[in-house]
Amino acid sequence: MMDTKSILSAVKDGSLSVEEAERMLRTQPYVDMGFAKVDTQRRIRQGASEVIYGASKTPEQSVSIARTLIDNGSECVMITRCPKDTYELAKQEGLDADFRDQARICIIGRMPEKKRESYVCVICAGTSDIPVAEEAAVTAEVLGCNVRRIYDAGVAGIHRLLSDADTIMGATAVVVAAGMEGALPSVVGGLVSVPVIAVPTSVGYGASFEGLTALLAMMNSCASTVSVVNIDNGFGAGYIASLIDRRGDSQ
Amino acid sequence: MMDTKSILSAVKDGSLSVEEAERMLRTQPYVDMGFAKVDTQRRIRQGASEVIYGASKTPEQSVSIARTLIDNGSECVMITRCPKDTYELAKQEGLDADFRDQARICIIGRMPEKKRESYVCVICAGTSDIPVAEEAAVTAEVLGCNVRRIYDAGVAGIHRLLSDADTIMGATAVVVAAGMEGALPSVVGGLVSVPVIAVPTSVGYGASFEGLTALLAMMNSCASTVSVVNIDNGFGAGYIASLIDRRGDSQ
Amino acid sequence: MMDTKSILSAVKDGSLSVEEAERMLRTQPYVDMGFAKVDTQRRIRQGASEVIYGASKTPEQSVSIARTLIDNGSECVMITRCPKDTYELAKQEGLDADFRDQARICIIGRMPEKKRESYVCVICAGTSDIPVAEEAAVTAEVLGCNVRRIYDAGVAGIHRLLSDADTIMGATAVVVAAGMEGALPSVVGGLVSVPVIAVPTSVGYGASFEGLTALLAMMNSCASTVSVVNIDNGFGAGYIASLIDRRGDSQ
Amino acid sequence: MMDTKSILSAVKDGSLSVEEAERMLRTQPYVDMGFAKVDTQRRIRQGASEVIYGASKTPEQSVSIARTLIDNGSECVMITRCPKDTYELAKQEGLDADFRDQARICIIGRMPEKKRESYVCVICAGTSDIPVAEEAAVTAEVLGCNVRRIYDAGVAGIHRLLSDADTIMGATAVVVAAGMEGALPSVVGGLVSVPVIAVPTSVGYGASFEGLTALLAMMNSCASTVSVVNIDNGFGAGYIASLIDRRGDSQ
Amino acid sequence: MMDTKSILSAVKDGSLSVEEAERMLRTQPYVDMGFAKVDTQRRIRQGASEVIYGASKTPEQSVSIARTLIDNGSECVMITRCPKDTYELAKQEGLDADFRDQARICIIGRMPEKKRESYVCVICAGTSDIPVAEEAAVTAEVLGCNVRRIYDAGVAGIHRLLSDADTIMGATAVVVAAGMEGALPSVVGGLVSVPVIAVPTSVGYGASFEGLTALLAMMNSCASTVSVVNIDNGFGAGYIASLIDRRGDSQ
Amino acid sequence: MMDTKSILSAVKDGSLSVEEAERMLRTQPYVDMGFAKVDTQRRIRQGASEVIYGASKTPEQSVSIARTLIDNGSECVMITRCPKDTYELAKQEGLDADFRDQARICIIGRMPEKKRESYVCVICAGTSDIPVAEEAAVTAEVLGCNVRRIYDAGVAGIHRLLSDADTIMGATAVVVAAGMEGALPSVVGGLVSVPVIAVPTSVGYGASFEGLTALLAMMNSCASTVSVVNIDNGFGAGYIASLIDRRGDSQ
Amino acid sequence: MMDTKSILSAVKDGSLSVEEAERMLRTQPYVDMGFAKVDTQRRIRQGASEVIYGASKTPEQSVSIARTLIDNGSECVMITRCPKDTYELAKQEGLDADFRDQARICIIGRMPEKKRESYVCVICAGTSDIPVAEEAAVTAEVLGCNVRRIYDAGVAGIHRLLSDADTIMGATAVVVAAGMEGALPSVVGGLVSVPVIAVPTSVGYGASFEGLTALLAMMNSCASTVSVVNIDNGFGAGYIASLIDRRGDSQ
Amino acid sequence: MMDTKSILSAVKDGSLSVEEAERMLRTQPYVDMGFAKVDTQRRIRQGASEVIYGASKTPEQSVSIARTLIDNGSECVMITRCPKDTYELAKQEGLDADFRDQARICIIGRMPEKKRESYVCVICAGTSDIPVAEEAAVTAEVLGCNVRRIYDAGVAGIHRLLSDADTIMGATAVVVAAGMEGALPSVVGGLVSVPVIAVPTSVGYGASFEGLTALLAMMNSCASTVSVVNIDNGFGAGYIASLIDRRGDSQ
Repeated sequence: MMDTKSILSAVKDGSLSVEEAERMLRTQPYVDMGFAKVDTQRRIRQGASEVIYGASKTPEQSVSIARTLIDNGSECVMITRCPKDTYELAKQEGLDADFRDQARICIIGRMPEKKRESYVCVICAGTSDIPVAEEAAVTAEVLGCNVRRIYDAGVAGIHRLLSDADTIMGATAVVVAAGMEGALPSVVGGLVSVPVIAVPTSVGYGASFEGLTALLAMMNSCASTVSVVNIDNGFGAGYIASLIDRRGDSQ
Repeated sequence: MMDTKSILSAVKDGSLSVEEAERMLRTQPYVDMGFAKVDTQRRIRQGASEVIYGASKTPEQSVSIARTLIDNGSECVMITRCPKDTYELAKQEGLDADFRDQARICIIGRMPEKKRESYVCVICAGTSDIPVAEEAAVTAEVLGCNVRRIYDAGVAGIHRLLSDADTIMGATAVVVAAGMEGALPSVVGGLVSVPVIAVPTSVGYGASFEGLTALLAMMNSCASTVSVVNIDNGFGAGYIASLIDRRGDSQ
Repeated sequence: MMDTKSILSAVKDGSLSVEEAERMLRTQPYVDMGFAKVDTQRRIRQGASEVIYGASKTPEQSVSIARTLIDNGSECVMITRCPKDTYELAKQEGLDADFRDQARICIIGRMPEKKRESYVCVICAGTSDIPVAEEAAVTAEVLGCNVRRIYDAGVAGIHRLLSDADTIMGATAVVVAAGMEGALPSVVGGLVSVPVIAVPTSVGYGASFEGLTALLAMMNSCASTVSVVNIDNGFGAGYIASLIDRRGDSQ
Repeated sequence: MMDTKSILSAVKDGSLSVEEAERMLRTQPYVDMGFAKVDTQRRIRQGASEVIYGASKTPEQSVSIARTLIDNGSECVMITRCPKDTYELAKQEGLDADFRDQARICIIGRMPEKKRESYVCVICAGTSDIPVAEEAAVTAEVLGCNVRRIYDAGVAGIHRLLSDADTIMGATAVVVAAGMEGALPSVVGGLVSVPVIAVPTSVGYGASFEGLTALLAMMNSCASTVSVVNIDNGFGAGYIASLIDRRGDSQ
Repeated sequence: MMDTKSILSAVKDGSLSVEEAERMLRTQPYVDMGFAKVDTQRRIRQGASEVIYGASKTPEQSVSIARTLIDNGSECVMITRCPKDTYELAKQEGLDADFRDQARICIIGRMPEKKRESYVCVICAGTSDIPVAEEAAVTAEVLGCNVRRIYDAGVAGIHRLLSDADTIMGATAVVVAAGMEGALPSVVGGLVSVPVIAVPTSVGYGASFEGLTALLAMMNSCASTVSVVNIDNGFGAGYIASLIDRRGDSQ
Repeated sequence: MMDTKSILSAVKDGSLSVEEAERMLRTQPYVDMGFAKVDTQRRIRQGASEVIYGASKTPEQSVSIARTLIDNGSECVMITRCPKDTYELAKQEGLDADFRDQARICIIGRMPEKKRESYVCVICAGTSDIPVAEEAAVTAEVLGCNVRRIYDAGVAGIHRLLSDADTIMGATAVVVAAGMEGALPSVVGGLVSVPVIAVPTSVGYGASFEGLTALLAMMNSCASTVSVVNIDNGFGAGYIASLIDRRGDSQ
Repeated sequence: MMDTKSILSAVKDGSLSVEEAERMLRTQPYVDMGFAKVDTQRRIRQGASEVIYGASKTPEQSVSIARTLIDNGSECVMITRCPKDTYELAKQEGLDADFRDQARICIIGRMPEKKRESYVCVICAGTSDIPVAEEAAVTAEVLGCNVRRIYDAGVAGIHRLLSDADTIMGATAVVVAAGMEGALPSVVGGLVSVPVIAVPTSVGYGASFEGLTALLAMMNSCASTVSVVNIDNGFGAGYIASLIDRRGDSQ
Repeated sequence: MMDTKSILSAVKDGSLSVEEAERMLRTQPYVDMGFAKVDTQRRIRQGASEVIYGASKTPEQSVSIARTLIDNGSECVMITRCPKDTYELAKQEGLDADFRDQARICIIGRMPEKKRESYVCVICAGTSDIPVAEEAAVTAEVLGCNVRRIYDAGVAGIHRLLSDADTIMGATAVVVAAGMEGALPSVVGGLVSVPVIAVPTSVGYGASFEGLTALLAMMNSCASTVSVVNIDNGFGAGYIASLIDRRGDSQ
């Protein structure tokens, strides 16, 4: 559908029938696997690695989608929220798979080479926020970024954060994961002049409402550099950070 | 009712009849003014100035309660959330009244002398939080405290806050008023080892929900020194801070 | 505080006394105007135009801050959520002021030259979302970006959006403002491989809860490219988009 | 009670005593099974198959209600939210039972013949929404409708949806099941001029609040063709769609 | 975009150039009026009258869109949530306009003839719900339906509702508007075997939360025939009811 | 409808035709005034005064309903949430009307005589809760009860409440109106062994959410004697209290 | 504390020392069992059976409190939310215990004789609401009331409810338990002129929010006879109903 | 960072190099253990025992942090929300550990001596609130305070609370833990003139929303002495109470 013009041209010069053109517009961009429509064109369109959301799929489904993508030319596929079982099935079926425990990400294929010197910075407030931060960090790495991590740097011990101010201020994008009161992105956002992607985490108890309080706090950040993704969505934050980091490539 | 023992003793030694004792237990602690029961004993029991909540009363009601208290021996009465009209009526009726615009507090009578060297620190995040901060500050002053103010010190410009760290760390209690993401109490709470009373303000828009977001964020503060009062309740925060400051008096 | 090292060096070589160094660390980064602490260093640190949030300030306060910034070397200052009165006072006081009605932004000084060919795309769902979209668009322009606007392109008429797909896909960052069900960012986010900053608007009625529904929907976007700012926060979205667009500059 | 007139006539002509008439008005429309009052007249009044909500009943209760209905003349009974155990008990007890795994529906008796050429279209956004979509689809089939399914057609890959636009536009009613941001009904609702019944699903995490976000988004749909049923209520959506499809029957 | 096939055919047989075809796909379905994109094809595609949402538009905007539609062949245009000013401007500009006070709807042009004998039933619970009910009723009438109204029939006086049971049971679709506890759609939904479109109204106080309680109650209706639209959305309910009623037309 | 049996008997003995009987079942219990269906039988069925909810009616509507009721034999009619205008119109039209300012209740006709010695007790927490308490108290009086009032007896001054413990413990039913934290019903509920009807009021600010906090607190009362009505619903509380008080009448 | 006068008299006539009087005021009304303060006087003050809330206690704790009460003269003790284990321990320890499965209530001792002819009516909407209804019904029976039950009488089959109208209208108090949309109390409340105690149940799914929707709907009941207790609080409803029923006793 | 001045002085007099000074400012205040940054200076700065939040850490992590603190000079370390396993590991590894079951606190090292005569009072409403109250009480004891406990003193039995009024009124700070309606802090707050720290507990069911209702009620306390911490945060309440109690030390 994106390529309307070239399909129209082919129809005009007779190299494509009306019926075929219509079918192409309909079926081309994905492979229908019954339980899912796999988008085999996205890699070409976006130049990025492929992503499978592993949480709601059986190991068999995830591995079979991964294989389809690899067979269609993907060099690297990552499975997020990946159960250990899925990784083990992938290994067993001979795929070149690697597993990052804390990030719950399975990487299949070859990690992309780092072409840039720039880096993305991933910060988290407490030790309980590390899994979400790692999901963001590994995602950005799989998508070709250098990543620097600053963990356990909550606002109630502000000197721990400030001692890393240079690293933070040198990044092209910053991901900040925090639960409870979600205050860290505001402090970080005031230190930098690059986008800060805030990830509320479900860390906390009582009136943290499983991340809702952090989410609302982050939405109200007094720092203009802050935008927010869903609770515990480390993947989304890492993905967006990688898009910003990539923006510096010669285009 | 609080003095059960002494009333009982008086009954026993005959200086008080059973009927009188019963009546005393019932009627003593307040004056019934029809529209309100004024607690004329509280000053004696608590040694503090008297407080009238002005928001839901007519100028006539507030001024008449104030006069009753003064007539019963109060040296200083303050009217909070005080409409200008009420202050003007008090002046007009010959009461010794003073009005603090930003704090919306009317002070009737003589401010108590400051007996202590210690001080309470009142901090606010943005210029819009100043009225709430002032309500806290003036309340503490009326209740006999020294107050130091640090205003417009939001977390997105953390150096503005840190430049006043010495003042903050020297207080006996700290009040922190903030709206939007409500992050400031956590940062302050990590700097000090005295109680921090956090006041969420209704400053903000959209997902600030008129202070609810700040309230929830403050409830989840990662600093163990922080407790929270109602949205915009500067009076309560100042009152509690004064109780803590007074705790250092020889007892 | 950011320049600890150079201040330390000056102390060491005797060109700066300990007392002066301490004072500098404390007072340097801003001018205290009583009602506000104006950050005169941010322009130097961030290379951007200055921003004053006009909603909670009197015309006198806004104009006096703007003048302070211009006097300290800012070339362009913008006042957001600017009441018409403030603009008129600025004109009257001889400042070089321009007013954008729909965006509610007053621009004081000289708009920066556009140095890039790249552009930011600003999209909105309905005609009622235009003020928020304009706030984002003008903000990005003041911060040096080219902007292309696509307005009234709601998802219930998907062909209106798709007819502009080329423009959308060519941007370096996309801002999407939508109220009601907040579905537009997901559709746009699926078309592009650059960051999409979603702005929920307070447009709607009943169960739109003044933008909360749109905010929650956007937080749950199935497109990985979407992050979200506060309800009606066009300024924040435009600011972040400009940071991403600027990222392509030679560094 | 609905037949007041005929009962009254029978009383008048003496064929019915006052006492009997009164009892009839009271007891006729259902069979009291102790734990439930089974409505054996509904089939007659509504011409539809019977439905048992299996979730809150023991296998014994569901099967015994089903048998009562079959014994009273029902040709087809369906048990929704049916535990596998219930189906197995029905088989074991000699009932003509069929089980649809994904839809969690047990069908007892003979499926109605399809008398119409028209069809209902059931669409879902992601693979995780399929159980809810299947509940709607099987319900409509049991109630005599033809059903066409379009699954995994989320708005972030809008071309997947549009490639099936013809099928969607030819339906007499459309059911759309979606979780997360719940945007799909708005896009579908803009394509068609028949009623769209939107079913929010509990698919998602974090700020999806188990379907509440999708529900609210759907309530705010900018497409006028959309109405909404409860979270995960595939049965209700399929039921309503069948009523609309049936509306085309000669009446 | 919907007519891909015929455009493709025209391209193939040379009656349409590639460039023209591309432009058609893009620009054909609407007229861009600057402040709005007016969909002049919808009437052709859907055979219905046109609708303008008047609440967020100036009288000038609404009237000018109405004129554009009439000029493009619409026979009847309705403006919902129409301020009286808009109606008066339309009259003044010579348009054939009619105003329904309670429904807040302005009708421009000729009401469609009623071609069917069937009717839609519109019910409301209390007198305060009448404006919403009237919006639904007039909408259905403008779209060609017969409408029967049953007003002030709340569930706490169940005999008032039951006395109209015959009328209710004879409709092809039922709209039920209710505020407060929103119980009426469940009772009505149990009486009929046609779709019931429930409209929560903002009528009530305290814990009615401006219609939220009624909305939630209706979402949980124990009657399977009930689906729900947004609070006070009488237009949407009337629109969907008319689609169902029209379904009986020979097709 | 309630009298099925006697209507059936009349049909049987020929004193009533089938058609008449049917009509009676349908039309008897109310007078249709166009804008409202007035229930003229309720007084007979319930032996109570009549009530008109004045908030959503014009003075003309309220007065005309009142007159209809008086003309049909009501001795006393009360209009709740009554605008002063309505009372003045009633006076002007010659009705025997009385107005209770604080309670916002207009009484038309003759107050019933008190036949019982028992009394209902109405308590409120603060002076701002008095209007709601008065609505309850006057309602109970109009419905024939003796009422004792205890006002301004909040839980933070528990001795004020306890000094009236005898009065509280002697009532047949207790109404407690409180805003803010809504704690009073629990304390009262622990003192008595009669039903306590709790009325949350919208008194408070910030996290009182216009009565929601008080409502939720009252729902969770640790006293088993407490049930709750809607926010500010003094009428309902007084009505229920009167039903309980009346229960002691010889029956 | 309730008997201040008699204690004072004893002090006066010397039969009680001041110290003893003080201790009595403090310790008399309950037995401190370490983990709980058991109120042994309540039976005397209230004439009712005793109640133990079993949910948060170990079997040992519940049984030991029960024994303490029996030893202090209670004739009947009931344990609500009683785990089966607790009942079995009571039996094993030789207490005269009876267990009501559906109501989850263990009765220890002798059920009170029914002294009245009057009865309480307990109604529930669906079969899933029966446990809550039974808790109310058994509670009322243990407290000396006759109870009539009407179960599975939801509003979507209004004839099932109306066929029992006579029973409902003859009660002295009505308990109505309903989940989902919580509409039943409004319908019942319109039929009767005695208090209706509504119990929202946690029955439902999706937007029922575990009873919150039913609770809010019931708070907004258009029937003035309805007050509400906490979700699933059958005990509270039965307790209040028994207080009302008892009110008819000669006093 | 707190000691900027002394570090600057050392740089000036040459005893510290610029590089070393910079490193000190950065690294001094904590030991980085990989999974956590342990603040070894806090004891010096605050003179208090150390606290480890045990809930989100493995036994190995908690014990290893505790050992690090003890090795750095801490005399007493407490682990809150401590799993029994962690205590057992500590014992096994030869640490001097003590476990308080109800409080879920493990104490490692030597309890501080009590230097003051003053005491903190900890009150709870019901037996289910005891674990939270104990967490507060033990925390205060570990931090050097005397503690007096008053448990099971809910507001529905107000005499149980009042019998301990003397103890309550003699404290320097009061902690009040309560679930359900959260009314107790208001009653206590009215009795005393010292700060009351209210802890909402998650005790309750239905509309208690796991402590949210109690939290909101406490935020709205009519007693000015009350501030609030997070749901079930006994530790925070005890910590703040200890800071207030300590305030009386000669300073």
